[in-house]
Amino acid sequence: MSRLSAGVSTSSRSGIITLTTDFGLRDSYLGAMKGVILTTYPGAKLVDISHEIGPQAVLEAAFILKNSARYFPAGTVHLAVVDPGVGSGRGLIMVEDNGLFSLVADEKYRVIRVRPGVSLTHPPSATFHGRDILAPIAARLASGESADDFGRKVNSFKRLSLPPVRKVSGEIRGEIIYVDRFGNLVTNVPAALLSQGRPCITMADSGVMVRGLKDSYCQGKSNELIALVGSHRFLELAVKNGSAHELLGLGKGGKLRVRF
Amino acid sequence: MSRLSAGVSTSSRSGIITLTTDFGLRDSYLGAMKGVILTTYPGAKLVDISHEIGPQAVLEAAFILKNSARYFPAGTVHLAVVDPGVGSGRGLIMVEDNGLFSLVADEKYRVIRVRPGVSLTHPPSATFHGRDILAPIAARLASGESADDFGRKVNSFKRLSLPPVRKVSGEIRGEIIYVDRFGNLVTNVPAALLSQGRPCITMADSGVMVRGLKDSYCQGKSNELIALVGSHRFLELAVKNGSAHELLGLGKGGKLRVRF
Amino acid sequence: MSRLSAGVSTSSRSGIITLTTDFGLRDSYLGAMKGVILTTYPGAKLVDISHEIGPQAVLEAAFILKNSARYFPAGTVHLAVVDPGVGSGRGLIMVEDNGLFSLVADEKYRVIRVRPGVSLTHPPSATFHGRDILAPIAARLASGESADDFGRKVNSFKRLSLPPVRKVSGEIRGEIIYVDRFGNLVTNVPAALLSQGRPCITMADSGVMVRGLKDSYCQGKSNELIALVGSHRFLELAVKNGSAHELLGLGKGGKLRVRF
Repeated sequence: MSRLSAGVSTSSRSGIITLTTDFGLRDSYLGAMKGVILTTYPGAKLVDISHEIGPQAVLEAAFILKNSARYFPAGTVHLAVVDPGVGSGRGLIMVEDNGLFSLVADEKYRVIRVRPGVSLTHPPSATFHGRDILAPIAARLASGESADDFGRKVNSFKRLSLPPVRKVSGEIRGEIIYVDRFGNLVTNVPAALLSQGRPCITMADSGVMVRGLKDSYCQGKSNELIALVGSHRFLELAVKNGSAHELLGLGKGGKLRVRF
Repeated sequence: MSRLSAGVSTSSRSGIITLTTDFGLRDSYLGAMKGVILTTYPGAKLVDISHEIGPQAVLEAAFILKNSARYFPAGTVHLAVVDPGVGSGRGLIMVEDNGLFSLVADEKYRVIRVRPGVSLTHPPSATFHGRDILAPIAARLASGESADDFGRKVNSFKRLSLPPVRKVSGEIRGEIIYVDRFGNLVTNVPAALLSQGRPCITMADSGVMVRGLKDSYCQGKSNELIALVGSHRFLELAVKNGSAHELLGLGKGGKLRVRF
Repeated sequence: MSRLSAGVSTSSRSGIITLTTDFGLRDSYLGAMKGVILTTYPGAKLVDISHEIGPQAVLEAAFILKNSARYFPAGTVHLAVVDPGVGSGRGLIMVEDNGLFSLVADEKYRVIRVRPGVSLTHPPSATFHGRDILAPIAARLASGESADDFGRKVNSFKRLSLPPVRKVSGEIRGEIIYVDRFGNLVTNVPAALLSQGRPCITMADSGVMVRGLKDSYCQGKSNELIALVGSHRFLELAVKNGSAHELLGLGKGGKLRVRF
């Protein structure tokens, strides 16, 4: 999902194109990209995922896109443009979800690198490949063209991953990977690791401790830090009708330990 | 409209689903909800009303939704998720606009409480009923299913209301209920109460006075506070090409008196 | 595009209506306008360009709209409401792109002033012509009605223009006209003026100098100010993975000189 690009499932086309960028909502860049898409494929159904990605924050974009994209119908094209490398030698990729084919082909995704100089209506600028290359490709994929028309399968491409948890002498060492609008602190500790017993969570700097998991955000007392499994399926720290981010003064990268 | 939910008019379906939440525009929550809707009903036409509702600000959401929803065609489904009580015992409701039927049935709205355990594709999480319960119901209502498929009529539900004006010895005592992007101060004094003569409005703390009503925002001098009936049909205080909010240093809850 | 309005190309209708306003994304104003459009023409395809235009910043809106609108298909209706003069004597205009006709008719645009009292469903308020006059007209234009149904051609209307560059003793004197989300500084020096040689750009206050043009944003060193032709086709100042706006402390109106 890095330096990326456009993903498409080969199953029946829905005509839906989602958009994830770091463009913000004030400038003309997003409108220009939507105009190109609708000029190329008037039947496209545009759905904004997020345009408030931090400038050049590729991993943040990947996290947000992943947690939205999984809910869209098969055949959706996800166009993501967070592109600090525009104009450099970096490639553009398409990620194709093989869907049912993965059962026989032993791989769920096929990654296709956009062929340099792929034929589009206008010659691309050096500063805005989102508008000049990816938007027309996304539109044509959504209209039913094959990803193979625009590039060739590659096996090597840049992968980003969330920071992994470490397991040290029976405890899990994790960190905060995302702070949402409500100040909930999403960690990198997956729900699957929390089933071995009643967890006791210690925040590294402050030593604040939380014992056990709640089911939902409305539990706990005023200003009490609670822990729960959030909708991303990771351990989250939260405060009922308040902000764990503000209560703890902790953000992305903040460390925590989980014992049982 | 509290702890709410989904409203639908029984008249011919438009396929339109509006969305009002406190999710903001950066996180994945809104995208996930849109994905669920489009997976459930690919023909849905999504229209964002506002996602910048203050976190858990249910009354603010109701005010904004009411002032938008009235302009949508019959058959529109309005999905609103401002849900501090997610995971608690709070119910989810659907509000059905009976439209023409109200002439004979003596009630304009029918309120239907979503049946717990209503059958949906996936078992719902405890933390995100907007995505797991309300989004699929909204999609199925928009596609033509009946609200009765998902719940049962109730007569008792939580109602919120705007703070009422008081009438004390011939004067109206009101307050500011909303500050818009332009710094216009919307009060709870309805236009209907202003027809009895030329109003004289006094702001409680500062004693600043405004005499008479203007017709529109472009009247008055630079930095002059003016009063008018705004598009919400309430008394508003404004400054031409400026901000009444900044001029007076007053926001929500600020008091005022109206004499004639 | 001032005090504006609605623009429509006479060629085949696309059903697309773009929206550009200074309403922000929290209040009910945008939702109300979309509701009116969809009630008037249920087939409309709404596309948001920008609603984060500075309050009453007509020229900013025109710059953003121009740089988006050019990418939309023929027949798109562009609805723009940045309207400090609502309720005053200011007129409302429609701008019609004659497209191919301009080759024979010697004018590319036809400007039509909305007839006062043009017949719409509801009597318009004095405070919200975007909702009460322009939204229904935009919807009816998108549905195929002619601009002539709503007004009459005018030859005189208010024009805004970007501040022009000056040429003084062989150098170009320009200024910053727009700062985007990335802190890139867009100037009023058009790309066409930069082809006469290798430019040397001097920022007026600080004396910071940049020699030559880069091709794209990823060139240059950390914290190095670079110059390039941006996607608006104007000279831009930028910093790789950083903000020229923050580096220089310069914003709109900041002066620069270009020598060769």
